[in-house]
Amino acid sequence: MRVLGIDCGAERTGYGVIDSDGREHRLVTLGVIRSRPGRPFEQRLAEIARGLREVILQSVPQAAAVEEVFHAANVKTALKLAHVRGVALLTVAEAGLELGEYSPLEVKTSVVGYGRAEKQQVQMMVRSLLGLEREISSEDAADALAVAICHATRGELGRAAS
Amino acid sequence: MRVLGIDCGAERTGYGVIDSDGREHRLVTLGVIRSRPGRPFEQRLAEIARGLREVILQSVPQAAAVEEVFHAANVKTALKLAHVRGVALLTVAEAGLELGEYSPLEVKTSVVGYGRAEKQQVQMMVRSLLGLEREISSEDAADALAVAICHATRGELGRAAS
Repeated sequence: MRVLGIDCGAERTGYGVIDSDGREHRLVTLGVIRSRPGRPFEQRLAEIARGLREVILQSVPQAAAVEEVFHAANVKTALKLAHVRGVALLTVAEAGLELGEYSPLEVKTSVVGYGRAEKQQVQMMVRSLLGLEREISSEDAADALAVAICHATRGELGRAAS
Repeated sequence: MRVLGIDCGAERTGYGVIDSDGREHRLVTLGVIRSRPGRPFEQRLAEIARGLREVILQSVPQAAAVEEVFHAANVKTALKLAHVRGVALLTVAEAGLELGEYSPLEVKTSVVGYGRAEKQQVQMMVRSLLGLEREISSEDAADALAVAICHATRGELGRAAS
């Protein structure tokens, strides 16, 4: 199954696409959609939507996975993020993709096996699980890949494989 | 100028379109986009986007106006609302409309002349300003018309007319 992971952000939205049978994962593509900070927020949302639609068109995933909004963060930041997340969910729904939503704890646990793992540990495990030799240059793309792996291992696919 | 006011909500998104020269306003259309509560949230976001695009296609506004998110509300509710608002802003941006964002205080002040006005007073003034004989059946549509009137009177148009 091909899974698109999305790491929403007002300035940088990371994405990562993997092929997975629930146990073994292979990288298809990764990247970051940057929205220009100087532009009006609604224009930036349009840039993010355009970028995500392009990724979906080019990589043709069957499912998408995103993290839940964490309520604990600064409220203003969380509200901004929720706008971006609304746009991402819309894009996923309009493309007809199955959607999985996971807490940061679930993502870390499924990738590192430990819910309080540091960002660096997550990155390292993502690299290792995907058999990547080089470091993943973008933290946002690494986070997107982590949530894609989480979906592949925790969703129906993962349950079937274990 | 033709202005589309949007009152975002996860279950009911009100809309109202007016023609205005900054002083006199005329109702073009009003209504509510209902998203079915039983469906997955991302599907409901897609229903809202579809509804808004249809309104824009049919009424061809030049500008859109929405209320700012009020941070004070219940955080979970505010986050949900922000998702819907993200979708609304995206729809507006992709339709190439000018966008105005106003605080509840600004909307009430511009419609009733008093920032702490009750919902009923806002409704009554909206009816009066638009010369409507009948009550506006939907509170959400009335709120959408209020923010459209706010844009028309407080935006460049309003400054030119006063």
